[in-house]
Amino acid sequence: MSIPSSYFPPPELTDLPEDIREQILAIQEKSGFVPNVFLAFARRPAEFRAFFAYHDALMEKDSGLSKAEREMIVVTTSAANGCLYCVIAHGAILRIRAKDPLIADQLATNYRKADLTPRQQAMLEFALKVSQNSDELVAADYEALTAQGFDKEDIWDIGAVTALFALSNRMANLTGMQPNEEFYSLGR
Amino acid sequence: MSIPSSYFPPPELTDLPEDIREQILAIQEKSGFVPNVFLAFARRPAEFRAFFAYHDALMEKDSGLSKAEREMIVVTTSAANGCLYCVIAHGAILRIRAKDPLIADQLATNYRKADLTPRQQAMLEFALKVSQNSDELVAADYEALTAQGFDKEDIWDIGAVTALFALSNRMANLTGMQPNEEFYSLGR
Amino acid sequence: MSIPSSYFPPPELTDLPEDIREQILAIQEKSGFVPNVFLAFARRPAEFRAFFAYHDALMEKDSGLSKAEREMIVVTTSAANGCLYCVIAHGAILRIRAKDPLIADQLATNYRKADLTPRQQAMLEFALKVSQNSDELVAADYEALTAQGFDKEDIWDIGAVTALFALSNRMANLTGMQPNEEFYSLGR
Amino acid sequence: MSIPSSYFPPPELTDLPEDIREQILAIQEKSGFVPNVFLAFARRPAEFRAFFAYHDALMEKDSGLSKAEREMIVVTTSAANGCLYCVIAHGAILRIRAKDPLIADQLATNYRKADLTPRQQAMLEFALKVSQNSDELVAADYEALTAQGFDKEDIWDIGAVTALFALSNRMANLTGMQPNEEFYSLGR
Amino acid sequence: MSIPSSYFPPPELTDLPEDIREQILAIQEKSGFVPNVFLAFARRPAEFRAFFAYHDALMEKDSGLSKAEREMIVVTTSAANGCLYCVIAHGAILRIRAKDPLIADQLATNYRKADLTPRQQAMLEFALKVSQNSDELVAADYEALTAQGFDKEDIWDIGAVTALFALSNRMANLTGMQPNEEFYSLGR
Amino acid sequence: MSIPSSYFPPPELTDLPEDIREQILAIQEKSGFVPNVFLAFARRPAEFRAFFAYHDALMEKDSGLSKAEREMIVVTTSAANGCLYCVIAHGAILRIRAKDPLIADQLATNYRKADLTPRQQAMLEFALKVSQNSDELVAADYEALTAQGFDKEDIWDIGAVTALFALSNRMANLTGMQPNEEFYSLGR
Repeated sequence: MSIPSSYFPPPELTDLPEDIREQILAIQEKSGFVPNVFLAFARRPAEFRAFFAYHDALMEKDSGLSKAEREMIVVTTSAANGCLYCVIAHGAILRIRAKDPLIADQLATNYRKADLTPRQQAMLEFALKVSQNSDELVAADYEALTAQGFDKEDIWDIGAVTALFALSNRMANLTGMQPNEEFYSLGR
Repeated sequence: MSIPSSYFPPPELTDLPEDIREQILAIQEKSGFVPNVFLAFARRPAEFRAFFAYHDALMEKDSGLSKAEREMIVVTTSAANGCLYCVIAHGAILRIRAKDPLIADQLATNYRKADLTPRQQAMLEFALKVSQNSDELVAADYEALTAQGFDKEDIWDIGAVTALFALSNRMANLTGMQPNEEFYSLGR
Repeated sequence: MSIPSSYFPPPELTDLPEDIREQILAIQEKSGFVPNVFLAFARRPAEFRAFFAYHDALMEKDSGLSKAEREMIVVTTSAANGCLYCVIAHGAILRIRAKDPLIADQLATNYRKADLTPRQQAMLEFALKVSQNSDELVAADYEALTAQGFDKEDIWDIGAVTALFALSNRMANLTGMQPNEEFYSLGR
Repeated sequence: MSIPSSYFPPPELTDLPEDIREQILAIQEKSGFVPNVFLAFARRPAEFRAFFAYHDALMEKDSGLSKAEREMIVVTTSAANGCLYCVIAHGAILRIRAKDPLIADQLATNYRKADLTPRQQAMLEFALKVSQNSDELVAADYEALTAQGFDKEDIWDIGAVTALFALSNRMANLTGMQPNEEFYSLGR
Repeated sequence: MSIPSSYFPPPELTDLPEDIREQILAIQEKSGFVPNVFLAFARRPAEFRAFFAYHDALMEKDSGLSKAEREMIVVTTSAANGCLYCVIAHGAILRIRAKDPLIADQLATNYRKADLTPRQQAMLEFALKVSQNSDELVAADYEALTAQGFDKEDIWDIGAVTALFALSNRMANLTGMQPNEEFYSLGR
Repeated sequence: MSIPSSYFPPPELTDLPEDIREQILAIQEKSGFVPNVFLAFARRPAEFRAFFAYHDALMEKDSGLSKAEREMIVVTTSAANGCLYCVIAHGAILRIRAKDPLIADQLATNYRKADLTPRQQAMLEFALKVSQNSDELVAADYEALTAQGFDKEDIWDIGAVTALFALSNRMANLTGMQPNEEFYSLGR
């Protein structure tokens, strides 16, 4: 069995640096609960700041990929890495952003069975290669994306979202991070 | 993308042999819908009868494994085989039988992250070996189960449920079988 | 080392239900010996009946695949699963049905080295994908079979024979089933 | 062949935000050249800032792991991911920090052949598991580190350095990043 | 399909250097046929001489391993490499040397199912690691052999026989080498 | 950790057969040191003679492949096998023969990142298939080489060099062979 999430105990809110405490309280106010990823990373304030800055730079900005498509990448590659936290938490976000109660479970089990556009299929195929065998990327992989209308900034975004969650999945698996129960049913 | 479930079109109910039509109507009455696995197999009446006879012999009988535990095996090994139908449909049955809305998603993503007894962990570890590397089974694998209190009939049951869904997962993947939408939310 | 076949001792013939005893005696009369698979499954009468009903539904009926071709699928996929019983017992049946003393050893070692028609090569390539990576089946895999003249019923048969022996290989590996010595030399 | 590093052309220094330009010029002054990773990430200023903040938080701080040990983790896991940039650039840094001209080539080829302390071997074995199979981490993996004297902060550091370079390796492979020629011979 | 053995046509006997022609004629006289491996290598006289010198140095000398045990290593590792020539030809030699008509088919399918002594099991487990993952050899692997009574010369022999057939299997697969029909039934 | 190279102690030069001692002294005179592979194999004179005869037959003769290209095959496939001795020693020879101080590190880390001609890429792709999955070689693999201008003798050479180092890598891993320190810096 994986180590419990109590292995690296989260800090007390009152012990946190001001900026991190405020960020966490703002999320709690907005969502009604504090996703466990914030508490886990808060144990290391400098890493917390870098991680969420990276996250927001990729996931919140305008992009050629819709926010739902970026969450598709997260769910699909996190499932390939066996990361419970990311599959469940980002599965919830994906259901909400895609307004589709089924898509997250489909992608988490087998993206080939989901009802995707050819563009989305190509996006996820590339993302899975970046996630699992990035050393084998060759020019033909980029051409398959270009053929679906993705430009270079889109390709960077697909790869960079995948790379960030390669980090995130490993941190969640390392720390035994558990998804909040709320995520399991959100958006169904 | 996988082939669509329309690749092997299901037969009309009226064209089915009497015994199969009655079995399907009984399920519809009990569940409120006909799980797609019944329609898919109905295309081949002799295989339908053998498959469900095998299924009921293992999944419905009294056993040293609870019905919830048998569904745990189904969900965990079907996830390892990327079988959308079995993960979603049996995930629903597992949630109901275990009275636990979270367990199916946990097992489908990474059984090491689920809140299991040591006995259940050992059961799933053995099931995954039967599912993925049955040629490598050695005496120590059986001893690990015996040490958790499983007897020979239990070990046969763990292996046989796994073996039946090795068949079932491949038939679902072969036929592009899609889970009924009802299953996604049942028992949550 | 694998567990011995005595781990799950076979029942006495006299303790078996009438229908199963008669089926076994009929085989003994016809073949001169009782293949061990019958004794192994006899320990569980309901599973015995379902398994052999499934087997006969696929292996004995008329089909677009010859009986020898169906045995080719069994030998090739059982070798990929390291199943000694199925490789040896069905290797013998294949030699007899194909009237070819070499084909079974060739398929069991490396089907790419056997002297096959392009149609048979395509059949075995598809069967191995169903056997080992059924989650990755895509439309192109079906088209490769259609291009060789296989119709949908044939494709179902290829996949279903493979799926049944996915079950069978796991039961043989689970129970330490040993092939009868007679099988090693039959048809050579 | 991998895409060339010109696929995502680096920006002109004069087009960069002030803080990034200054950071790059400072490095050039200190090292005598600008490592290509700075130019590659500079194309995305927000990601540049987050990445190097994360990097410095882990690689520059005081830790129970020496700086040389952290570079050992980078070289070993980057080799497992086939990342030329990280193997060559961090190989150079490792040679310098460990004052050992041979260690980088040894770790990049096969860490089992390097002349390591048992503590360092355990560290690299854990790092490779986080890198390649983080979903399979179990309590025994942490205990193996504790037995070598690593505390929880050390374990976080081993895992977090590995996780950051899981991201970094994928970004380098995605962008076809080439190591500067200077790195190949530094510290030999 | 593999390339045919006619891809690299064997030379005419009359065109061969004297020593090679004599060696081949001597084998023909002794065995009644010329194993195809001799004809395949004869295309390259210098490689022929080196290969068979290496072969005889390992396979014909006195050793702590019986000749049958050395053939067990050949059959088991050649099966793992999907080498039809070596499995069939050395399977025949093994049947003869072990005076056991079943052992070759057992080892070629799954050595865990064969009736071996613990010493032979340990020998084959080590050989398979040398064959498939020699980079992962660690001290414990050698200790497992020592515990079964193998000394250093025996361990070298196990590894060296495996290494020679790593070469041989690749040459047979490269050249599409087919076993002579005689080998399939010898010693049964 | 791998066993140390002292596990199989090399013989004293004075105890060696005359021909082997002279061969070793000649190399020492020419290179300034005795590469450890000579001392390791000298423990078994008959194997020593066969191995270096095989080596010279492939690596020293005239061939459609340049000597540098043959060393490219050695470095690339030895890296895939995690063989420290061959990567470092033949990396040095490659640097010298190709007059390129960077190529060995590139090929050892990821041949897709090296600056190769399409012909060399095709050569290394084929070599890696012979090295890692020779059982899956099919006619198309040979055609890809022919399309780059390689003839049958060249294809044999690519495969045979790969096969010889499949042996050599395993012997080096088996014996814990360490590269001489001189090799690490030669040709940089």
